[in-house]
Amino acid sequence: MTGRGSERIMQNRSRILDAIVKPHDIQTLSTQELEQLSEDCRQRIIEVTSQKGGHLASSLGAVEIAVALFKVFDFRRDRVVWDVGHQAYAHKLLSGRNERFETLAQYGGIKKFLSRDESSYDHFGAGHASTSISAALGMAFSRDLQQQAHYVIAVIGDGAMTGGLAFEALNHNGFASKNMILIVNDNGMSIDPNVGALSKMITRVISSPSYNWLRDETREWASRVPFSEPLQHALQKINTSLKTFLLPGMLFEQLGWRYFGPIDGHSVGELVELLTHVKDLDGPIVIHALTQKGKGYSFAEEDAFTYHGVSPFEPETGNFVKKSSSGIQQKSYSKVFAEKLGDLMEADSQVVALSAAMMSGTGIIGLHEKYPERVLDVGIAEGHAVTCAAGLAAEGSKPFVAIYSTFLQRALDHIIHDVAIQKLPVRFALDRAGLVGVDGPTHHGCFDLTYLRMIPNMVVMVPADGSELRLMTQFAYEHDGPIAMRYPRGNTTAWDESATGPIRLGKGMVLQDGSDAAIFAVGVLVETAIAVAEILKEQGLSVAVINARFVKPLDEELLQQFAKRCQLIVTLEENVIAGGFGSAVLESLQQSGTVVPVQTIGLPDRYISQGSPEQQREDAGLSVTKIVGSITGRLKELMPRIQKPSKTVKKAS
Amino acid sequence: MTGRGSERIMQNRSRILDAIVKPHDIQTLSTQELEQLSEDCRQRIIEVTSQKGGHLASSLGAVEIAVALFKVFDFRRDRVVWDVGHQAYAHKLLSGRNERFETLAQYGGIKKFLSRDESSYDHFGAGHASTSISAALGMAFSRDLQQQAHYVIAVIGDGAMTGGLAFEALNHNGFASKNMILIVNDNGMSIDPNVGALSKMITRVISSPSYNWLRDETREWASRVPFSEPLQHALQKINTSLKTFLLPGMLFEQLGWRYFGPIDGHSVGELVELLTHVKDLDGPIVIHALTQKGKGYSFAEEDAFTYHGVSPFEPETGNFVKKSSSGIQQKSYSKVFAEKLGDLMEADSQVVALSAAMMSGTGIIGLHEKYPERVLDVGIAEGHAVTCAAGLAAEGSKPFVAIYSTFLQRALDHIIHDVAIQKLPVRFALDRAGLVGVDGPTHHGCFDLTYLRMIPNMVVMVPADGSELRLMTQFAYEHDGPIAMRYPRGNTTAWDESATGPIRLGKGMVLQDGSDAAIFAVGVLVETAIAVAEILKEQGLSVAVINARFVKPLDEELLQQFAKRCQLIVTLEENVIAGGFGSAVLESLQQSGTVVPVQTIGLPDRYISQGSPEQQREDAGLSVTKIVGSITGRLKELMPRIQKPSKTVKKAS
Repeated sequence: MTGRGSERIMQNRSRILDAIVKPHDIQTLSTQELEQLSEDCRQRIIEVTSQKGGHLASSLGAVEIAVALFKVFDFRRDRVVWDVGHQAYAHKLLSGRNERFETLAQYGGIKKFLSRDESSYDHFGAGHASTSISAALGMAFSRDLQQQAHYVIAVIGDGAMTGGLAFEALNHNGFASKNMILIVNDNGMSIDPNVGALSKMITRVISSPSYNWLRDETREWASRVPFSEPLQHALQKINTSLKTFLLPGMLFEQLGWRYFGPIDGHSVGELVELLTHVKDLDGPIVIHALTQKGKGYSFAEEDAFTYHGVSPFEPETGNFVKKSSSGIQQKSYSKVFAEKLGDLMEADSQVVALSAAMMSGTGIIGLHEKYPERVLDVGIAEGHAVTCAAGLAAEGSKPFVAIYSTFLQRALDHIIHDVAIQKLPVRFALDRAGLVGVDGPTHHGCFDLTYLRMIPNMVVMVPADGSELRLMTQFAYEHDGPIAMRYPRGNTTAWDESATGPIRLGKGMVLQDGSDAAIFAVGVLVETAIAVAEILKEQGLSVAVINARFVKPLDEELLQQFAKRCQLIVTLEENVIAGGFGSAVLESLQQSGTVVPVQTIGLPDRYISQGSPEQQREDAGLSVTKIVGSITGRLKELMPRIQKPSKTVKKAS
Repeated sequence: MTGRGSERIMQNRSRILDAIVKPHDIQTLSTQELEQLSEDCRQRIIEVTSQKGGHLASSLGAVEIAVALFKVFDFRRDRVVWDVGHQAYAHKLLSGRNERFETLAQYGGIKKFLSRDESSYDHFGAGHASTSISAALGMAFSRDLQQQAHYVIAVIGDGAMTGGLAFEALNHNGFASKNMILIVNDNGMSIDPNVGALSKMITRVISSPSYNWLRDETREWASRVPFSEPLQHALQKINTSLKTFLLPGMLFEQLGWRYFGPIDGHSVGELVELLTHVKDLDGPIVIHALTQKGKGYSFAEEDAFTYHGVSPFEPETGNFVKKSSSGIQQKSYSKVFAEKLGDLMEADSQVVALSAAMMSGTGIIGLHEKYPERVLDVGIAEGHAVTCAAGLAAEGSKPFVAIYSTFLQRALDHIIHDVAIQKLPVRFALDRAGLVGVDGPTHHGCFDLTYLRMIPNMVVMVPADGSELRLMTQFAYEHDGPIAMRYPRGNTTAWDESATGPIRLGKGMVLQDGSDAAIFAVGVLVETAIAVAEILKEQGLSVAVINARFVKPLDEELLQQFAKRCQLIVTLEENVIAGGFGSAVLESLQQSGTVVPVQTIGLPDRYISQGSPEQQREDAGLSVTKIVGSITGRLKELMPRIQKPSKTVKKAS
């Protein structure tokens, strides 16, 4: 308890939550106590996220589901897989992490998502959507193979149900019929308002109050009128099916799952009753729980969108705590991209943007309002976004696919098979590339340079700032073939494209000349490279800095030029070293037979934990100080004249 | 016309097919002529595939669909996307490729799949399943943006409907409501018998002859009995819904598509009538056509499985033409893997195998018969296979995921996010890695070493022959973490594991020593490396050959040893050079500060066309002759003593 606002919001009674010692103690609580426990969890979530940030609205919406699960099941033995895990903060609080919850989203602290490393109660981790049914089904198979009898539960949001993976798993278990319980946490919206027919269908029930009346009426009437036997049989069939054909559960029932619901997902009593009632039924079961994102915190209820993933805020007012401004005007890369895309859309009616349930994250939501027919949100369906874009490109439209780097991993085959083999001009805008900060390992965009540059026909660009992003967006628009650009989470101070030289295919830009070593950098690390060169200069070293701009095709001419002149080529990237930009440089040099020492600096071969971007760069060896250390270390071996690098490294961050 | 058998099968009438000059001429044909045309296509398909091989059964099953499409639509303007394309040989014949069809599956000839490069009538190419609805939807969006009014059609098999991508697209257009027609070519089996609830549901109609009777009975009875108005309204609702709740179309209708069917997919008349009737309806439309794989060729009808993808056969007997045996006993890599896996399954009840509709292709179908509960076919759903395996591994079972290299591209994110981040011991068996021969660009497994080795926690092995595959399968079983092994299509002559040294993590094997150059090779190219070294020896060069075995972790000790001793390190792999094994070697050498010339030999940065594996290796620069040429060229630069490499290169293949 540190925050002023939280204390005011807190009630004076002692919290049941704080009294929970073992998670299975919850099984002994009364309904009234469970309701209080839910309220406690909710308070605690608001308390901590208002100070530390995190996923607020989704987690508030799923509190009663988490409480009911701990009442009915024993998760020392039973298994639960929470989809994505950003809805599972109550699960964390209830499974021994109440005290440590204060460290949420901090370096070394409680993670924003579930993680098998964090608790034995996190049976399966996830940061990407739609995986829970698949994983839980695997667990159910394993349970049966081991002749055990525990329960397996998956909890999935309605948004995540639009992902093909969820369907593949539903389909598989419709056939395999393994015992498991799927709770659909239906809050009527994923991060962006849900797209798609499935979501429309699931929520249709809300507009069907006629269902109960109709069922009762038909039953009563059928019992009074005498019919021929075949007709009676037929009516029985109709009657049985009434439930399914008027209810949203039909799709599940058709796929072989028994459907129960919809029920009030904020009534812990109802949830406990239904779970207790159905848990021992054979075969796959779906429970459809209607919930509200942000439940119990009025600001989040009214605007779940803004309060999905939050930075610190004042609980009483809902106002976000503003960071002290540096005085320098900043703009997010996402916004810079969207603005330039808007210019292109205005000028050319064939420009189309596709997003996979990330219209606001990628900045294009404003364009959607202006061009609803040309800004398509396809749902959490990255593969489909890419193949659909290929279809658009095949017919002469000009698609941009705006997806976070980490999520585009879902669409690798679609990029190769549907776009690149056919040389179709689909433009990929990879947001959140590189280290992403507090979201941690599942969200880093640290593989894209590798998995994109391996693909024949693909062009891969990395803008060093917003102005280059604008120019590259223009370049991508004009390019007749598959092309990608990747840019980081966060802000840029420069977005005036007139200040930057033109983009030419496969051409880098020399920012400063040098003769001892040459640093070829891409993206945010270009600025780092300049700082590094500055420090090395103070040590008497002449270091060139090149903004490579293109990872594919490489500027081989420039590379050769510096390879011949310098003792060392250094590459800098926020991508894994394995197969990344530095690797491309190594390949190019060896192909030309140029033998020169190269030092590739990038992300190491391990996952970087959550923390601030600065902490993560330090951890990954990408801070200015660490890079200076690496380069001087290497140059020391190569150039005997640097015997003692200056001990007081200035300007290091 | 070259084959004896084909001539005998041919009828004497002149073929309408041969008289078709322009595809749109088909629009003028009568139903009877269309039926003859269908028969002609069928004959031609049997004729050519019996000589050249290809996809027989699927294409025979879709002949009438193709003919009806050309009758009703004009594909100079209208658009059709055939899923996979292996069902679309009639489409090829009808769109100007009848004469050239003789070159099917040959180097430089007609491709086995559709390709935008091959014909302006191939509007979208595909070799992987489930992409057609997405691509066609993109085309429909583009049409509307361009304010055009042509028709867009997708044809998909019921097997491909189990892929999540198909569902994502269905879901998206259920909401977007773009005009398009989807023909579900339901032959009741994908390559392996279909798995999953969806497939069960779609075929349920066959067991429901009661539908028509019920509908008529209810209608008649409803018209006779006087009801209260609300009840009458309710009954109308029931009646309207009868169609959907008894018919397989319900799922489509629920997702917002209008469903028509099922109809006889071999009645060209019925198909034409229905297409004509519905083509101008607004919104998304599904036509459900029941077909038979292998239709019209009795052997294929009886065993569509065997006649799915065929090598040359005698049309009269259905017997496959046996290749002259070399006298050396051979066994496919798939079989070697399956046999070893069978041993493991027998010894350990926790070993589980998962396949994505490729149980026979990956060799595990026999194991499925023996262990139906432990050999899971999840449908065309690679992502789900991997995440489900992660669930199994999380609970202590021991999953092997057996998927073709090219198809595993669909599951990259699942490998990273669900398996590798959590360090779960899922074992990946990548079949058909490297060049695959006649299936061409969509089917090569040429990226896996790159996209697997970039992933932290992953181990990547490449067996040089069947005996190593056996040993590596054992090693993977014992390894406690994510691990992959990739092996080629085709046969091996060696599968006696006792003849091969033990596998140790990250350790390669020196096959022969040498001091001028050292070739580090993986997989099938180890044998090539030996042949290359032999020839180089005749030229007076001492060349070491190392079977690297592990791409990750690399045997850095061995690498250092040879880097210090030799003038040149050569790497050999059947993977793209970009980010592949050679690239890992370059990274390792630079990280250790070892400066030595390296020559990375692998697949170039372009797609290799269909052909025999020998033609493809030649094309890719991976034949013995070409490799010898590359190495001597490079050594010539490095070692002045080889002034003139011998012009008569012996033993080159």
